[in-house]
Amino acid sequence: MPSISNKGQAMPQSPIRKLVPFAEKAYTQGKTVYHLNIGQPDIKTPQIALDAVKIHSPEILAYTRSEGSEDYRRKIANYYAKKDIPVKHDDIIVTTGGSEALLFTFGSVMDVDDEVIIPEPFYANYNGFSTASGVKVVPVISKIEDNFALPPIEEFEKLITPRTKAILICNPGNPTGYLYSKEEIQKLAAIVKKHDLFLIADEVYREFAYDGTIHYSILQEESLDEHAIVIDSVSKRYSMCGARIGCMVSRNKEVIQTALKFAQARLSPPTLAQIASEAALDTPQSYFDDVIEEYEDRRNTLIRELNKIEGVKVGNPKGAFYCIAQLPIKNSDAFAQWLLEEFDVNGETIMVAPAAGFYSTPGVGMNQIRIAYVLNKESLVKAVHILKEALKIYKD
Amino acid sequence: MPSISNKGQAMPQSPIRKLVPFAEKAYTQGKTVYHLNIGQPDIKTPQIALDAVKIHSPEILAYTRSEGSEDYRRKIANYYAKKDIPVKHDDIIVTTGGSEALLFTFGSVMDVDDEVIIPEPFYANYNGFSTASGVKVVPVISKIEDNFALPPIEEFEKLITPRTKAILICNPGNPTGYLYSKEEIQKLAAIVKKHDLFLIADEVYREFAYDGTIHYSILQEESLDEHAIVIDSVSKRYSMCGARIGCMVSRNKEVIQTALKFAQARLSPPTLAQIASEAALDTPQSYFDDVIEEYEDRRNTLIRELNKIEGVKVGNPKGAFYCIAQLPIKNSDAFAQWLLEEFDVNGETIMVAPAAGFYSTPGVGMNQIRIAYVLNKESLVKAVHILKEALKIYKD
Ligand SMILES: Cc1ncc(COP(=O)(O)O)c(C=O)c1O
Ligand SMILES: Cc1ncc(COP(=O)(O)O)c(C=O)c1O
Repeated sequence: MPSISNKGQAMPQSPIRKLVPFAEKAYTQGKTVYHLNIGQPDIKTPQIALDAVKIHSPEILAYTRSEGSEDYRRKIANYYAKKDIPVKHDDIIVTTGGSEALLFTFGSVMDVDDEVIIPEPFYANYNGFSTASGVKVVPVISKIEDNFALPPIEEFEKLITPRTKAILICNPGNPTGYLYSKEEIQKLAAIVKKHDLFLIADEVYREFAYDGTIHYSILQEESLDEHAIVIDSVSKRYSMCGARIGCMVSRNKEVIQTALKFAQARLSPPTLAQIASEAALDTPQSYFDDVIEEYEDRRNTLIRELNKIEGVKVGNPKGAFYCIAQLPIKNSDAFAQWLLEEFDVNGETIMVAPAAGFYSTPGVGMNQIRIAYVLNKESLVKAVHILKEALKIYKD
Repeated sequence: MPSISNKGQAMPQSPIRKLVPFAEKAYTQGKTVYHLNIGQPDIKTPQIALDAVKIHSPEILAYTRSEGSEDYRRKIANYYAKKDIPVKHDDIIVTTGGSEALLFTFGSVMDVDDEVIIPEPFYANYNGFSTASGVKVVPVISKIEDNFALPPIEEFEKLITPRTKAILICNPGNPTGYLYSKEEIQKLAAIVKKHDLFLIADEVYREFAYDGTIHYSILQEESLDEHAIVIDSVSKRYSMCGARIGCMVSRNKEVIQTALKFAQARLSPPTLAQIASEAALDTPQSYFDDVIEEYEDRRNTLIRELNKIEGVKVGNPKGAFYCIAQLPIKNSDAFAQWLLEEFDVNGETIMVAPAAGFYSTPGVGMNQIRIAYVLNKESLVKAVHILKEALKIYKD
């Protein structure tokens, strides 16, 4: 039997996927499971986006240009202009989700054995894209005690080697909910310029900034013209994860021309979803106001309830819709499985994401979980109650 | 300025893309251009597929499972059963076009510096996916004199090294239109078993087999359980290239489990397009009968007209909707550009794909072009007339 690739063997499994069989077992036992583990929002997709697909009546569902339709890219450039982010339509390549924008970016700027520095904990699939590209992730630890703020600049500089090609941040952060300040972005800008690195910012949660804070994009740093690459996506912004539309944005022409070659090889991003995503750009501001208010409320509820549990430590997320909670346990993998397999409160239990999968340093985050607040407040209160009861009796 | 990757630099440009500026110039000169260069069929998408998206009314456009929805995969397995191809739904991973199926397959079975043997001329983007994966393409020449039949087995065996991991065929072939016989597939089966290689077959043109011939899939070879991987796509079958839905199929569990990890990293294939593609499976046979008849007619017209031109040699394609034509010229890149820039017959000219991009052996195919018969017969006749007139006056 021919053997699969080493790379394929090394590809990480999604940290949540391992729990799926236990969740299925819980269902067959008749349990209700509150899903705190997923990044799929429960917010409705703007009707304008869903309608666009219905109104559209092509006779042939054809390929679009590899970089996305020009109309759509011009409208995206407009969207950025409104956010004070100066980019032109030809600084943009439309991709199949932010996921593909990450893949094209890795391919365009890094070779096998190159290194990318990423503050951890980080979005678990950065590991997958790195493995697929043969790139080494070099983590720099951000701590729950500091609310996951940017690690000191010296920590980055200690890690830079001749193979370092980029620093990758997620802003606001999945899984931390941390929102970088303008000052922090400027510190990063100084390092990447000094060491001639790319700064890649995954800004797919840009809209989700709370408490009146305003997101500061790396593309607002004009001095980063040649260095900045932004990963973006409609998935979370318009709650249309299934569309699979995102984009890669850079004012560095060489980067865009290179990424375009990867885009050409796969022909075109999805056409129907581009139609929906283009229409979504006309979503009224009131939609976002409501969504932000809803998430803020949920976050307040969640953090307040978590803080009531003895021994639980939690950051104060300013963005996205996740938080990392540190629990008085040793191994959150085993705990998450136990919650599904052995525990319930009146037939109800919770599914959480063990946090170790969001770290690449072995052994770190073993007593942490990630909670996504993609459920309504009432469910969140119930879910945290279940967590509290579980911690009372759980023994590692 | 930070430098882009070596891989990014090595990524090939699409062979057609280079001509686009010259086509644009031709338009501004007011010329009509017959596009013989593209793989985008002009056939209508089945209404049932387009309607499905309009009828479907979700409130949230959500991610599907990474491997595609189970319903859809079960229906795909059914489709294969009707073609006497025995696969189960869990032998299938739904992908974002056949393109992504190729990417996952390369990632799952090959590492950097591994080798894949491909009969050339071949689909140009195999070069792109190989470069992106760091894999070396080892071409084995199939000749226009032999109508692009499978090269002799000894030619393959000469090329096998310890780094060879797979043989990749395209059946029916883009750009040759060649349809492999059952005997040829069995010869390939014998080699891959003898040398413990994977056999990857790109069967995205499966339906397009002419003159009453029947396509023989590598998955019909039961002895290939562990070796066979099929690349498939809805793009051409239902003329819905813009959907971006394909699949990767193998009865080798390890291959599917490995590919699933790549699929999980990118989360999900497009949801709307899966709905359209699932509905497309109910397209009545009459649709295909009509389409096949139309393509057969076009092929007959095209080949007949081409054979009337002195000095032109053309194969007899039995499948897909392309052919390679050898012209009495030296450099088809220059010729294709000249056709757009300098030539017209009553304000009309043609755009063709220079064939060198379909070969990886340097210098081969320089006097050939690929013609796609995705235009109606009348246009094809006009287009070949333009080619004939052009050859009368063209000087290399
Ligand atoms: C931080 C981050 N980046 C990128 C993605 C990829 O999302 P998509 O491919 O749906 O745009 C996600 C999805 O959860 C995410 O959380
Ligand atoms: C031989 C072959 N394979 C694969 C593809 C990829 O098509 P898609 O990604 O649209 O399924 C094409 C498209 O032209 C092709 O000709």
